Amino acid sequence: MSIPLVHPVILCGGSGTRLWPRSRRSAPKPFIPLIGERTLFRAALERASDPSVFSHPVVVAGAAHVSLIEAQLPDGMNARIVVEPSARNTAPAIALAAALLEPDAVMLVCPSDHFIADDPAFVAAAQRAANLAKDDWLVAIGIEPERPETGYGYIKRGEALDGGYRVERFVEKPDLARAQSFLAEGGFAWNGGIFAFRAGALLDELARHRPEMAELVQTAVSEGEQDGLQFHPSASAFDRIDGDSIDYSVMENTKRAAVVEASMGWSDIGNWAALQDALPSDEHGNYAVGDADFKEARNVLAMSDGPRISVVGLEDICVVVDGDEVLVTSRTGAQLVGKLKGPSQG
Amino acid sequence: MSIPLVHPVILCGGSGTRLWPRSRRSAPKPFIPLIGERTLFRAALERASDPSVFSHPVVVAGAAHVSLIEAQLPDGMNARIVVEPSARNTAPAIALAAALLEPDAVMLVCPSDHFIADDPAFVAAAQRAANLAKDDWLVAIGIEPERPETGYGYIKRGEALDGGYRVERFVEKPDLARAQSFLAEGGFAWNGGIFAFRAGALLDELARHRPEMAELVQTAVSEGEQDGLQFHPSASAFDRIDGDSIDYSVMENTKRAAVVEASMGWSDIGNWAALQDALPSDEHGNYAVGDADFKEARNVLAMSDGPRISVVGLEDICVVVDGDEVLVTSRTGAQLVGKLKGPSQG
Repeated sequence: MSIPLVHPVILCGGSGTRLWPRSRRSAPKPFIPLIGERTLFRAALERASDPSVFSHPVVVAGAAHVSLIEAQLPDGMNARIVVEPSARNTAPAIALAAALLEPDAVMLVCPSDHFIADDPAFVAAAQRAANLAKDDWLVAIGIEPERPETGYGYIKRGEALDGGYRVERFVEKPDLARAQSFLAEGGFAWNGGIFAFRAGALLDELARHRPEMAELVQTAVSEGEQDGLQFHPSASAFDRIDGDSIDYSVMENTKRAAVVEASMGWSDIGNWAALQDALPSDEHGNYAVGDADFKEARNVLAMSDGPRISVVGLEDICVVVDGDEVLVTSRTGAQLVGKLKGPSQG
Repeated sequence: MSIPLVHPVILCGGSGTRLWPRSRRSAPKPFIPLIGERTLFRAALERASDPSVFSHPVVVAGAAHVSLIEAQLPDGMNARIVVEPSARNTAPAIALAAALLEPDAVMLVCPSDHFIADDPAFVAAAQRAANLAKDDWLVAIGIEPERPETGYGYIKRGEALDGGYRVERFVEKPDLARAQSFLAEGGFAWNGGIFAFRAGALLDELARHRPEMAELVQTAVSEGEQDGLQFHPSASAFDRIDGDSIDYSVMENTKRAAVVEASMGWSDIGNWAALQDALPSDEHGNYAVGDADFKEARNVLAMSDGPRISVVGLEDICVVVDGDEVLVTSRTGAQLVGKLKGPSQG
């Protein structure tokens, strides 16, 4: 078998409000160093940079983040930046990239705000997915579930394919009992939002299931303008799209959905507790970025851009100091951080 | 009966490390606004400022805090500042003040770092104590206990006197079971460190029970120097004192110890949890000084000198932001705050 070159498509649309105050409107989650020195965006690019496997990337982002993207592109990387005129969810963003690639190009859609610990496992999974995608399978990379997580969608595998499986069905975020039954039953993977498509196949399926969206994307591209590395789709067409996710508009409707399973230390870093889980810790479960002092503290994440954080007599909390904001949240409360006043104020 | 004029003696020796980082070496607990706009020191002075009851005060403090004291003295208050050459605990500090007053002056010793909500109740108790002190009783003002507190010493009352009682015995900080038995039994009061003495009587009792200390204090005063409002005892004498508390050196030894009981909304504000108890709160038990945002939070004190504090999904904690320090402590951990790295670094 000959594995096609893979075109990374990096999506930069998430707002990351649940990682406020480190993630702000002006510099959201993909563009800030959360784990180590590297931003998640930079890591996503570098993970898919081996020229024997990957072609140069297409980055899809809003205008507000283009300068961050250009500043964080590795030197000499020949990336194309597609500047979304407006936020219309993942299906239009992916379709824009597909319409700019050759129809036979195999694209690998990667969120820019997830963490993957095991890059070689990612590359291997990407190659298996690309191999199916070249035969017009629409491939989701499924993450082997580590716990009965209720925050993710699940993918149930069906009959075996070469390197993967047909998708039997997609499952929305389950309650805990269902999530537990999925793990007990086996054959379920987390839907991590990573997909491989032949560009032409993706556009064909979109035209089948969301014809109006497909047409507006084609118009936005044909009436768009190239400006150096940046491509600006026509706003008059793109803004009229009724936005939707790639899952709802294509993956759950197509008859050729496939899943390639991977175990690669993946996390969506969906909130402070998830970030804490992806970070190391000392023998008491504590971890500090910046100056910190712990006393009778357990499982505490302390992250500061300046002031020292001292924590006494507490467990299972995250403390984040960022400029003019101080956040103190329980691990269980971490999912509510986006609903505080601060994130809506920038 | 004629009640003598009362000479307030305000002690400023405490370090207040358990209220770090708001309380710092350079501006410790008495000199910072913790409850309302007024500092505890200023409140202690103003509480004892009615000229029909009180004479002008004597303030005893270390050299490091004289400038703070002078800045916080009410306009026109004719205070005398005794500058301790070194910290030698309460007995030498009180004896310095006594030696500078006329022997028949009745002094009222008040810590500068406690909170009292009901000033009229304080004044009434001070007058009852002064009335006993003029007859050479050494009088502790006992605080009516509100709970089985294990952080304070207790005073057991004996036979009735005019406006008070003989002290049957002083009790060191008890364990919880003993504290509960004190409340059940009745007749016990908290020892709040507020005392009334005739100056000559205090010095006589000190000479009886700590003759060396009494002699070194007298030498320190006779060889001391007045400099404007400030009196500087001789360091060569004072530094040689083996420091001790007024409780150990005099009150627990004298045969003429008396107690006057008072219920005046007293708190020693001994740690962040005690401060929280002395502050108001909203219907969820939360209270903020500065900008704060609470979500699923209960019984949280948030105190900031600038940055906003956002608290999610936590209860019974105190969050304090002060310059380059952020403290997050459980209420039960609050007593350990003084053992963090920060307080020893200033």
